[in-house]
Amino acid sequence: MAHRIADIAQALGAKAEGALDLIVTHAAEPAQAGPDALALAMDPKYADGLAKGAARAAILWPGADWRAMGLQAAIFAPRPRLAMAGVSRLMDQGYDFGQGIHPQACIDPSAVVAKGARIGPFTYIGPRTVIGARACIGPSVTVAEDVVIGEDAILHTGTRIAARVRIGDRFIGQPNCVVGGCGFSFVTPEPSAAEDVRASLSGDRELRQQKWMRIQSLGSVTIGDDVELGANSSIDRGTVRDTVIGSGTKIDSVVQIGHNVQIGEDCMLCGMAGVAGSARIGNRVLLGGKVAVNDNIFVGDDVIAGGAARIYTNVPAGRAMLGDPATKIETQLEIRKALRRLPRLAATVAELQKAVFGGKAQD
Amino acid sequence: MAHRIADIAQALGAKAEGALDLIVTHAAEPAQAGPDALALAMDPKYADGLAKGAARAAILWPGADWRAMGLQAAIFAPRPRLAMAGVSRLMDQGYDFGQGIHPQACIDPSAVVAKGARIGPFTYIGPRTVIGARACIGPSVTVAEDVVIGEDAILHTGTRIAARVRIGDRFIGQPNCVVGGCGFSFVTPEPSAAEDVRASLSGDRELRQQKWMRIQSLGSVTIGDDVELGANSSIDRGTVRDTVIGSGTKIDSVVQIGHNVQIGEDCMLCGMAGVAGSARIGNRVLLGGKVAVNDNIFVGDDVIAGGAARIYTNVPAGRAMLGDPATKIETQLEIRKALRRLPRLAATVAELQKAVFGGKAQD
Amino acid sequence: MAHRIADIAQALGAKAEGALDLIVTHAAEPAQAGPDALALAMDPKYADGLAKGAARAAILWPGADWRAMGLQAAIFAPRPRLAMAGVSRLMDQGYDFGQGIHPQACIDPSAVVAKGARIGPFTYIGPRTVIGARACIGPSVTVAEDVVIGEDAILHTGTRIAARVRIGDRFIGQPNCVVGGCGFSFVTPEPSAAEDVRASLSGDRELRQQKWMRIQSLGSVTIGDDVELGANSSIDRGTVRDTVIGSGTKIDSVVQIGHNVQIGEDCMLCGMAGVAGSARIGNRVLLGGKVAVNDNIFVGDDVIAGGAARIYTNVPAGRAMLGDPATKIETQLEIRKALRRLPRLAATVAELQKAVFGGKAQD
Repeated sequence: MAHRIADIAQALGAKAEGALDLIVTHAAEPAQAGPDALALAMDPKYADGLAKGAARAAILWPGADWRAMGLQAAIFAPRPRLAMAGVSRLMDQGYDFGQGIHPQACIDPSAVVAKGARIGPFTYIGPRTVIGARACIGPSVTVAEDVVIGEDAILHTGTRIAARVRIGDRFIGQPNCVVGGCGFSFVTPEPSAAEDVRASLSGDRELRQQKWMRIQSLGSVTIGDDVELGANSSIDRGTVRDTVIGSGTKIDSVVQIGHNVQIGEDCMLCGMAGVAGSARIGNRVLLGGKVAVNDNIFVGDDVIAGGAARIYTNVPAGRAMLGDPATKIETQLEIRKALRRLPRLAATVAELQKAVFGGKAQD
Repeated sequence: MAHRIADIAQALGAKAEGALDLIVTHAAEPAQAGPDALALAMDPKYADGLAKGAARAAILWPGADWRAMGLQAAIFAPRPRLAMAGVSRLMDQGYDFGQGIHPQACIDPSAVVAKGARIGPFTYIGPRTVIGARACIGPSVTVAEDVVIGEDAILHTGTRIAARVRIGDRFIGQPNCVVGGCGFSFVTPEPSAAEDVRASLSGDRELRQQKWMRIQSLGSVTIGDDVELGANSSIDRGTVRDTVIGSGTKIDSVVQIGHNVQIGEDCMLCGMAGVAGSARIGNRVLLGGKVAVNDNIFVGDDVIAGGAARIYTNVPAGRAMLGDPATKIETQLEIRKALRRLPRLAATVAELQKAVFGGKAQD
Repeated sequence: MAHRIADIAQALGAKAEGALDLIVTHAAEPAQAGPDALALAMDPKYADGLAKGAARAAILWPGADWRAMGLQAAIFAPRPRLAMAGVSRLMDQGYDFGQGIHPQACIDPSAVVAKGARIGPFTYIGPRTVIGARACIGPSVTVAEDVVIGEDAILHTGTRIAARVRIGDRFIGQPNCVVGGCGFSFVTPEPSAAEDVRASLSGDRELRQQKWMRIQSLGSVTIGDDVELGANSSIDRGTVRDTVIGSGTKIDSVVQIGHNVQIGEDCMLCGMAGVAGSARIGNRVLLGGKVAVNDNIFVGDDVIAGGAARIYTNVPAGRAMLGDPATKIETQLEIRKALRRLPRLAATVAELQKAVFGGKAQD
């Protein structure tokens, strides 16, 4: 994939200088870049790397003196990650989904697969399922019965889409992701010990022997456009209504979304985040890695939860949260500072106690 | 699936009033319910929803004035989730496992699959494996050699059952769940740094360069009756004896159960819970979402651990636990209250220090 | 698999006494051991178990009086887990990968699979992929295009290796593990709210509606020799350079490794650990179960992080860490002690406040 510097700059909407006809074949980190590479050095911290590598062309921070760095051409990127989006799209080798439908795939005769779809070996498409134009479906994928998937879907190998799931356009499923496993919903004939504890916030209760009865998931999962679901992540189906993931929402690897959850648009759920059953999450919410959202609570629009935050109660729109239990980030940083000093604080209080009451310090 | 109101009420063991011959075809949330739906409105908070919807029949809370709500028939449910179990079983569309054994499945000639089993395409059943009556096995499932699975098993697509696993009746495996991956068990020739730290509870130690040697898993996994395992969840096999999951225990999605773990009967492990190697868990234990149980510890019968609790040490039977490190719930709620006030407490102590000792406040 | 006691002792490099020609067929826990079993009783705590079982031979702790225990032969193991490694290797039944390439596998004609490989049904090997000698590949595995895998690989069922991944010798992939899912890397055209919060460590910010643009993963994953990856675990590919896992590193089940992460040699990552994007981890690092490592930070050689530790910032080499936020283990144990006493501390301060200032105690 050979690209002229001028063409790359144009694709990025960026300014370029020097040998605009120079050809690069791939992108590389500055120190590893050979003469055919476009070095990605959008920050002054990469200047040393550039000196070590052999790149003739680079994407640089605005104002960088590319000639002094021994380069022949430069593209200037005021927002590095945005440039990365453009460059990576241009340079992406993509994945080999083969051509057409592999003879070892199994497509139910009643399924409707749009022309141009690529479907790998050992992939199964169930009865009455509809798959939109230009789908790229890898090997060993399962799409069950009565599913609707929009245009330009990419389902990587091992993706499982269960019955009656509805997905919009441009969905990306990473390897071994699951959409539509049954909800985890059980009930005991009499109130269970857990219900008692939740109600009383106390461990005192009558113990009973009871069996769990299963609540079947009558609902399924509805997913908007431009959603991505990470490797080994799972979205459970709803009990009565569908579990819902809004358009533009991106979900990382090893994430779990419980039954009945409603997630808004343009959210980002980082790796190992978990959203428990029937929680509702607004638009543009960002959950950092390993964040937990309790069941049946509401997290408002534009909430940002830092890594490993544990959200037990409703969060108003716009708030930035951190910690376990999660609080406003400012509060949490104060708590953490105080916590580090807690052993010293305890010693101080013991001294005070002695000084004031004359008695024996707290042990 | 058309149902008479009278028949639904009878199936639930519930009282019904009004047009008992009215036919409903599916269940729906009150606000979305059309004239053919049975609205699920077991709590007064759904009264508004009922008014918005077009349902003619509903399941209501006891004493609800169904006529005033414009309904033609009502069923009364004193315990809503219990009614949900019954209604959902009645209304469940189920999943399409096809008929018989799909021609693109691969069943080892020495496997014994009971008559009536449904087995999807690209599913492999290994040598000498025995699968009980009425099994429903989806596409792309693997059941390895020398496995025994009881009656009425449902193995959703992507389920992996490794060699020599034994499972009772009515097992449900959600998509991409794994039973019987190797235990994570390694040893270094000389005591490792981790062993030193565990013993001394201190970071002071001699550093050594050592390679990990693998301990093979001679054991497998034994699972009782009526167990469910969630999507992308994993149960590791045992080192010498089997890892054991007791009858009636339900395991949610993205859960990990380490090698040698012994879990009792009728437990519930919610999403992203993790139980480390050789831990023993009693009967009727409930682990909330993202709960962690340390290796080699014991959690007694009827213990309830709230969401994200981190259990590092043995827990006596009956206790309700919360927090990191987990404590009794009452203690944890006190700690959390105190923690929120900690910055203010520190300020107060600084003032006291100044007043009492006259010196400079603690920085 | 019949073994003479003398042969087992020799394989372990251990001392044996008694009937060295006695034959055992398998290993067992002392209490469950029959007359043909080798009882594993490397610690005095198993003496009672031995008395209950019917073993004639055992591996014992040094100095144990095997005759008094009614045994006919004994092997002495000064380091129990090390002996387990040897015994388990000897007694391991292994897994049935069939013979040769299954007729229902799909191997691209341009793939190069070394002679002697065993490949299960419904497994796909992509174009130009090279697989080393003696590979054991289970059913329903996917190895995509342009992958290189070294000698003696074991890929259990459901393993997914994505395009251009490079793996050394003796790799073990547990069921449904994923190597090379796309990195979770997105950018908004203008700085996002999350960037503002990270910069200011405050929730105050301008709210904006923005869409996430995808950064493609141009890199892949490079894995050294002797690496193991657990069931349902996932390693994401890199953005420009590869994500790297060093030789000898062992990764447990349900672990997530983000894009661009660099992990050194001989590390151990326990169940449900997560390493966020672009973090760098040294050699011989041990991350306990559910440990979290923040993105873009550095964790030095020989660091040990106890279960559920949350590492938000760089950690110098050799340190033992615990807690959320993780601190040195000694500090954390002090914090935890102080935390348990916090409600009492608050009460004491209130009393002091009253005594010193005479005012109303802090509520």
